[in-house]
Amino acid sequence: MSWYLNSGPESDVVISSRIRLARNIKNIPFPSRINKEQAAEVIKEVKKAIFENDAFKNDFLFLNMDDITSIEKQAMVERHLISPELAAGNNECGVIVSRDEKISIMVNEEDHLRIQCLYPGMQIDAAWELCDKIDSILSRNIDIAFDVNYGYLTCCPTNLGTGMRASLLLHLPALAMTGHIGKILSLCGKLGISVRGFYGEHSQAIGNMFQISNQVTLGNSESDIRINVKNIGKQIIDSERSLRNEMYSQNPYRFEDRIYRSLGILSSSRIMTTEESLKRLSDVRLGVDMGIIKDIDKKVLNEILIFIQPANLQKLFGKPMSADERDIIRAEVIRNKLAKT
Amino acid sequence: MSWYLNSGPESDVVISSRIRLARNIKNIPFPSRINKEQAAEVIKEVKKAIFENDAFKNDFLFLNMDDITSIEKQAMVERHLISPELAAGNNECGVIVSRDEKISIMVNEEDHLRIQCLYPGMQIDAAWELCDKIDSILSRNIDIAFDVNYGYLTCCPTNLGTGMRASLLLHLPALAMTGHIGKILSLCGKLGISVRGFYGEHSQAIGNMFQISNQVTLGNSESDIRINVKNIGKQIIDSERSLRNEMYSQNPYRFEDRIYRSLGILSSSRIMTTEESLKRLSDVRLGVDMGIIKDIDKKVLNEILIFIQPANLQKLFGKPMSADERDIIRAEVIRNKLAKT
Repeated sequence: MSWYLNSGPESDVVISSRIRLARNIKNIPFPSRINKEQAAEVIKEVKKAIFENDAFKNDFLFLNMDDITSIEKQAMVERHLISPELAAGNNECGVIVSRDEKISIMVNEEDHLRIQCLYPGMQIDAAWELCDKIDSILSRNIDIAFDVNYGYLTCCPTNLGTGMRASLLLHLPALAMTGHIGKILSLCGKLGISVRGFYGEHSQAIGNMFQISNQVTLGNSESDIRINVKNIGKQIIDSERSLRNEMYSQNPYRFEDRIYRSLGILSSSRIMTTEESLKRLSDVRLGVDMGIIKDIDKKVLNEILIFIQPANLQKLFGKPMSADERDIIRAEVIRNKLAKT
Repeated sequence: MSWYLNSGPESDVVISSRIRLARNIKNIPFPSRINKEQAAEVIKEVKKAIFENDAFKNDFLFLNMDDITSIEKQAMVERHLISPELAAGNNECGVIVSRDEKISIMVNEEDHLRIQCLYPGMQIDAAWELCDKIDSILSRNIDIAFDVNYGYLTCCPTNLGTGMRASLLLHLPALAMTGHIGKILSLCGKLGISVRGFYGEHSQAIGNMFQISNQVTLGNSESDIRINVKNIGKQIIDSERSLRNEMYSQNPYRFEDRIYRSLGILSSSRIMTTEESLKRLSDVRLGVDMGIIKDIDKKVLNEILIFIQPANLQKLFGKPMSADERDIIRAEVIRNKLAKT
């Protein structure tokens, strides 16, 4: 089952936890300076390490970027399995993904290896453990570039040291609606945490989703980084929760009106843009999380969040569609998925 | 059963037909110059004529304006059973209404008698026949002021002659949305027909409802007036219908999106103003009339149209409410009535 169909702790605010490790192979140039043969060699080594491992081989799939359509690539970008950079790559590059989409290993992106683990809810430690396990297996088979002073060597110096990025995807409607998010953003910056809107820029993040992650990878241990992200995450979670309750108790009808109107529109509309659906799904998610809407399973919301995106929508329908056609099909997909609950 | 719960011909565009006759009693001053005793005498005579008639007495109710609450009065204004002027009257004045609310006879409004008959759909002739029947019964018992040259004598000279106003309440969303209504309005003026927004002014009629009626009562026969209003009504109906079909065929998804969103919002919202509900009910009515929405009975829409108005809402709930409270209860009433269909 796909990871996003499971639930995790603190999932009223935390949508997902993610750990990403950057790794490179000793004595092979970084992908930006690699030749075709060397790139092919990287792929071969990584595939060997994963697919010759009995515990892993049946759960993983290798996809060479040259072999898949642009819609398929874009769909993987939307599912956060690969980066836009990998999708645009024209050298030998690809990705190894687990069937539940929890694990993805990009090969020949900015670094030779980008190992990512995604978990629902607040599960940074679980994501770390899984990432670390994959890293250990790869390290046993591949000679990883490591320096005593600089730690793991990476193409971009901002990834040196641990090569680790720990991030939380947070749903912060109350902080965003009240504008309090601004304070949080500047505070995070001071504490070494970067924040970006998951869709759109900070100030106008669509769908009220924000991703926080560590800015620095060098000079802190993996454990320190995780603790820092978790602690700041917990403070943001607390602020968001108390603000939700405050807003609700100040004017419950106004609050419920907003939520139910969004549900009514999602359940009825015939034309729906990605932007509007993210906005309205945020309201409905808030309603479910606050116990106002009782008959909708959040798994359905997570599923919708993925399938409404342009490439996944086209993949679902098995054909390329214009933006206008997508808006019509998107409305239909949302109506059908909500009607089933 | 209340008249608005029945259906009539051309009801995809015509909500109701109305005939109103102005009559006065010979040798008694017009209500603006009447004294209390004379006013009481008018009421007595009219009540006698109606309640001593075997065919009528059980179907009618007399309400003295002094005896009912201001919410009750306002509710009757909203149901178009009495005018705001009668509701505000402080002399002896009242109304005789039939139980189905099809007939109302205002006593001591601007004239001694204002006989009104309301029918659903395009039924001007039926409304006229009923009005004429009431008029005949009253005339048999009461000495009506009539002049050979000026016809029925009325307080305001604009009502002289027939004393008749024939009107149609039309739902014209396509003409209003496209702005074509402007042309219709000016054309009507040239043809002796006045148009007013049923709620709000011409240019910004809320709920896209417009009432057309004859401007002149003198110099034309009752039959000519009816024919003129019907003919112009039919031309407007044709324009509205062809414009609806044109708009729909140009972009069916856009058209249905608007309709279903309004239905979704009406079925879900927790706060709903009168103005917004009229606007959204217009969309839903259009959807039902065009066969897009199939599972909603238009009777329910007609019922909602009455019960969402401020005084009727308060009457329904049996207590005075602030505007904010009404918006909450209005949303609830609409949800409940729609959920039943």
